[in-house]
Parts: sequence; C-alpha cells; structure tokens
Amino acid sequence: MNNDRRKFMQQSAMVSAGLTLAGPTLFANTTNNNVENNMKNIKTKGYAATDESGILSPFEFERRPVEDNDILIDVKFASICHSDIHQEKGHWGKQIYPQVPGHEIVGIVSAVGKNVTKFKVGDRAGVGCMVDSCMDCDSCQAGEEHFCDRGETKFTYGFPTEKEPTGITQGGYSNKLVVRDHFAVHIPNNITFEEAAPLLCAGITTYSPLMRAQFQVGDKVGVAGIGGLGHLAVKIAVAKGAKVYAFTTSVDKVADIKSWGVAEVIVVDDEFKNMQAYAKTLDYMISTIPYQFNVTPYVSCVKPRGSFTFVGMPEKSEITLNNLMLAFARVNFNASLIGGIPETQEVVNYCADNNIRPSIEIINAEQINDAWKKVENKEARYRYVIDAASF
Amino acid sequence: MNNDRRKFMQQSAMVSAGLTLAGPTLFANTTNNNVENNMKNIKTKGYAATDESGILSPFEFERRPVEDNDILIDVKFASICHSDIHQEKGHWGKQIYPQVPGHEIVGIVSAVGKNVTKFKVGDRAGVGCMVDSCMDCDSCQAGEEHFCDRGETKFTYGFPTEKEPTGITQGGYSNKLVVRDHFAVHIPNNITFEEAAPLLCAGITTYSPLMRAQFQVGDKVGVAGIGGLGHLAVKIAVAKGAKVYAFTTSVDKVADIKSWGVAEVIVVDDEFKNMQAYAKTLDYMISTIPYQFNVTPYVSCVKPRGSFTFVGMPEKSEITLNNLMLAFARVNFNASLIGGIPETQEVVNYCADNNIRPSIEIINAEQINDAWKKVENKEARYRYVIDAASF
Ligand SMILES: [Zn+2]
Ligand SMILES: [Zn+2]
Ligand SMILES: [Zn+2]
Ligand SMILES: [Zn+2]
Repeated sequence: MNNDRRKFMQQSAMVSAGLTLAGPTLFANTTNNNVENNMKNIKTKGYAATDESGILSPFEFERRPVEDNDILIDVKFASICHSDIHQEKGHWGKQIYPQVPGHEIVGIVSAVGKNVTKFKVGDRAGVGCMVDSCMDCDSCQAGEEHFCDRGETKFTYGFPTEKEPTGITQGGYSNKLVVRDHFAVHIPNNITFEEAAPLLCAGITTYSPLMRAQFQVGDKVGVAGIGGLGHLAVKIAVAKGAKVYAFTTSVDKVADIKSWGVAEVIVVDDEFKNMQAYAKTLDYMISTIPYQFNVTPYVSCVKPRGSFTFVGMPEKSEITLNNLMLAFARVNFNASLIGGIPETQEVVNYCADNNIRPSIEIINAEQINDAWKKVENKEARYRYVIDAASF
Repeated sequence: MNNDRRKFMQQSAMVSAGLTLAGPTLFANTTNNNVENNMKNIKTKGYAATDESGILSPFEFERRPVEDNDILIDVKFASICHSDIHQEKGHWGKQIYPQVPGHEIVGIVSAVGKNVTKFKVGDRAGVGCMVDSCMDCDSCQAGEEHFCDRGETKFTYGFPTEKEPTGITQGGYSNKLVVRDHFAVHIPNNITFEEAAPLLCAGITTYSPLMRAQFQVGDKVGVAGIGGLGHLAVKIAVAKGAKVYAFTTSVDKVADIKSWGVAEVIVVDDEFKNMQAYAKTLDYMISTIPYQFNVTPYVSCVKPRGSFTFVGMPEKSEITLNNLMLAFARVNFNASLIGGIPETQEVVNYCADNNIRPSIEIINAEQINDAWKKVENKEARYRYVIDAASF
C-alpha cells in the first residue's frame, strides 16, 4: 500500500498537461473542463451502500484524477447485477463503506490522459467488472486480465486502492468514472447505451464459457436460471445455433423465454421431477443461478463426458457436489467468472451486430432500492438499467 | 424383487446338468464336486461384518448355485480396499449384515455353467467391484457395465439380490465366489495371484481416469494420497511416461515413493504451504484421498484448462468446492469410480506385461481386523492381501 501511494505521488508530481480535453460543447456541464483542473479529483455523484443492510443512498464523492493512461467517462447508464447486492450485503466478505456498486457501465468519453490512443473524447465506452491489472504478465498479455498472474486485477468496486480518494474503487451507480483506457471497451453505434450496459457483465460472463464450450450448431445447450445472466446466455446460445433448453423456477417467465427462440422451457419443480426426462440429454449446460442450490439434478442433465459450467456466485462461495453423482454423470464440472477485455469487446460487437439485446427496464436512481428487492425476489424482467442522469 | 425371484425360480426349474465340472483332483476338497450337487448352494467360509463396528468375524454362509452363465472361483487371495471399511462401517449408508466385504479377488476357476465359454476349469480368474449388470444396454455393450443404463449393475458385496441365499451379494474375504462369467477377468501367468488382486479395484480405479486424461509422455501428473490406490496410480503413470508428482501427508512414505520413479514427492503440511510452489504446474491430477479434505490447494496445482479427477469415496459422498477457486483455477473437475470389464482386463494385462506390481503384505484371515485399523491409520504399505487358505 505504501508502495502504491509512493508510486502515485511520483506519477502525480511528474504529470504535466497530460489530458486531452473535450471540447467546450461536450463539457458545458462538467467541472473538469480546463487544463488547470487536470490533476484534480473528479467530483462524482452516485448511490452508495453504507452498511450491509442492502439499502443505498445518494453519495457525493471524488474519484482519482485522470492520469496519463486513464479516460474519464460521463456515465449514461449503469445496470444492476445480482452481484452488486451480494457484495454490498457482505455475502462474500466484509466490505468497506460507503461503497458505490455497479459494473455494467456505459457512457461517453469526456477526457483522456496523454498516453491514451484507444479512445478519444466523444467516443462511446463501456466498463465491466474490472478497471486495472498489471498488464504485463502472461495472462494480462493474453487478454485474460481477470486472471492477472500477479494478482493485480482491480475489480470495479469495493477493491482497496490508495489511488482512489475513498480508498476503494467505486462502481458505476454514478455519473462519472475514471478508468485505465485498456479496461474500457468501445460501444458500437448500432446498439443503444442502455441495451449495451448489461453486456459488460451479464453478457461477457455467459458468452465466455459458452464460447469455450465450443458447442456445434444444433447441439443441445442447457441454461439454468433465467435472470439477468441467464436470459443473455439463452439469447447468445440461440444466436450461435444451439438448441437451447431453459430451466427456470418462474412459471411466469415461460412466455418470454419461448419468444427468444429456445427449444424448450422446463419449469423446475421443488423435487426436480420434471427434470428427470432430460437426464443425460444435453451437450453442455451453464448455470447462472446466483445462490446455493442442489446442482445434482442439473449436472445429471448433461451427457457423459460433457461439461457443466457454474457461473453463479453463491454466498460463502461454496458448491457442494455429490462425488457419486459426479462419477456416474461423468460430467466435467467447472466454474467461470467474467472474461477478459478482448472477449468483452467481442461480445459487445457480436450482440450489436446480431441484434442480441438484453430485456431491460430503465429506472431512476431513487428506484434502485426497490429494484434490488425485485431482483432478490426474482421479479426483474430481466435487467434494471439506471439512467445516470438521475444521480 | 418379486420379478427377480420369479425369474430365478424359473431359471432353477429349467436348469439341467448345466455345469462343466472340475476333475476329481481339483475338487478333492470341495463339497460341490459331483453332478447331483449342481444346483446346490455353494458352502463358503469367510469373514463378515455383523454391524457398523468395523469388526469382522468368521462367517459360514452359502452362495447361489453355479448357473448357466456363472463360474465358481476357488479364491486364492483377496485384498483390502479402504472402501471395504467405509461401507461396512455404514459411512455410505445403512448396510445389511452379516456382510462379507472384498472386491479385489483372485483364484482358480473350479466350475463353469453350461453357457460359459470365457473360462474353463483351472483358469486363473479375478473379480473386482461388480458381479452383474443387464449386459444389454448401450453402456453395458460398450464395456461400461458399471454405468448400466438400466441401473442393473450389481456391486460385489452388500448389494441386495434375491439370487443370493443371504439376500445380498457377498464379497471376496472368503474361499469361494460364484460370479457371472463376464464379470471375471483372466489373470495372466506372468503375475502372481497375490500381486494381481489389488489391480481389480485399486488398479482399474486409477488406470481408467489416467487413461482418459490422455496425458502425453513427459507431462506432469499429480497423484494425491499415496495409499492402496495412489501407489498404483503412481506406478501406472510412471510406466506410461508421465513425470509424476506424488503428494502425501506421510513423511515415512517418501523413500518408497521415490523408488517408484517419481519426479518429486511433496510432503503436504497442515497449511498446504509447500504446495504453493506447484500452483498451476501440473497437466493433470488425480486424487485418491479416501476421506473429505480441502481440495482447493490440490486443484490449484493443475494448469488452467487442465483436469482434476476425484476418485476417493468420502463419507456422505460430499465434496465441497469453492466456486471462486474453481473459476480462478480454470480446472475441469470430475469424479471417477472403478472402470468397465474390458478395461479391467486391460489394466491387469498392462501391469502383468510391464512389471507394474502393487506393494503388498500378505496376511491371514485373523489379521484382518488389525489390518483395517492400520489402513485407517495410514499404516498400510500399501495393500494388505489376505491368503484365502486361512478362511
Ligand atoms: Zn455482474
Ligand atoms: Zn497481470
Ligand atoms: Zn476398492
Ligand atoms: Zn446395462
């Protein structure tokens, strides 16, 4: 930490007029629109959790200045991921508060550091689950920045860092974001901001394992849990030519899911009885169920020697498997988290070009707390997207 | 069950002089050596558990008659598998007693049913973990009788069946065994009975996943838990050209393990500190640890996109994984149980031909209870083999 701070001080001292500024039109309403302000912190408004209650409230704070490799994004929309709720409620460990969640973030670049070539002011940009890494190790060089070999991946919110005035990274439920250029992706013009937002976590998190599974056109792909992540998994897998079998516990989602072109929707009952007909039938299955659940009946739907990917993030991060079940199923069980930056760009482009759109509902900042409750109660249809103008 | 009994009654009624008998020399000491006795039950002496205490005692019982597709084996040796202890103690569920354990069984064929062509009297034969299946479904036809699609795999002991006078299958800690011919394998002449016995479970159980892993010569293969199964996994993997990394908690096994040609032996400490140096280094890993353990440090030794096979059978059959660990490790986790009959023949032949021999200690029946305690205390070096002449 000391080292980090020292590095930051040195960088601050060395920096001169490192920012390429947005023109006066774009910046008419910002406080950060002239050279004198270059190394000033970025005043930001957002919504933060202040404890484990799961209640967010308005929060004004500062972000770090825009450094040489950074861009400043005027956030337009940020969407709500179930992970936001888990993390702010402390389900995955103690948090530092106030903490602004949000890792599905889109907006317009309003300033760039002097080394930045990836973006120019006015570009449409998106940020997902991470905002920095070493950029130098084999994994980072291979575009797997989320697996930085040096463990320097910085996640978008709640990650301790002395670079940020609040001591942690602060997420996308806010009107401004400073991020290292590499960790933002381009949002093509053929998709709206609000529809692009959910691709930054839900999109990449499902796209990455689906692509790794290398299923063929016509293969049977199961998707368990049809929420924010699952509904995108369905749409992506359908677009890639799979026969999709969607497993949900919500009978009132059936009509929606059918409209997305699936082969079948299975409404899972408490005793998993109607799943038995699907035993050993699927070439691949992905589960996006965001809590602890009995994985046995799901894994059992996959053909022997097929794979099952777990992308949920249950409390305590624990999955309990029955080794006999796993041995008889002969299924390869793996887990997946997000994806790297090049692949995030890929999924955004793929969805933009192939008319894959998340099903969204736009809300204002003051509706966030209500939306969180609905997400927890499985009432979201299917992603809440916050209009950042309301912060 | 009723159906089973009816089928058995019909078969009994229809059978005539269906047994090809052993000559008088071989049968001098048996009670089953003439045509009049064909359909008589086979009087057998063995050691049985009578409750969950884990204490065995002498037990005289009858096996079913030798039917048309059956062979009778005069057992010469049966070895002790950790599974025997788990099952008799009820760790995997309630048992029917008295129950004779043992699924590593070798001996001489002393009678064959009239349909049997696979064996003739006097042949050397071995029996492992299963003694019957439907033989007709796709899995059975594919030589994966342990995955019988109709669920008709009968395990060697403790499996309810009305075909057996005791109501359950009875295992190899005994002097006689009646088994459907298909479920016995040939024991080549270039291996002793006592050294062949452990191949019937420990051998096939490790050989099958090792072969499925398709590692290349020079690949780094980890073996966790160097007991009865693990020491054979080491020897087989070394013979197949792997650089083997053996992980044990028993410092006094190090010299033995080194003598088997491994690349390294890692003595695992309570905090797994010395395992950290092996993070992401192995192409494949197999764990034979027969109880619940913290799999995270082991799985973390496998390279991303590598596989990890769990062949232990812990109490309650539960494995708890950390989904974050699994996601960061990017390892495919699977479980394996035994192997099919053709592959069992393959491992027996392979070990016989390539001078792969289990490290064994021969004991008499009255030493079984002591040997079980030693197995539980990790004192076995490495397989106890019971001389069936002592029953
Ligand atoms: Zn998310
Ligand atoms: Zn890195
Ligand atoms: Zn065994
Ligand atoms: Zn079968």
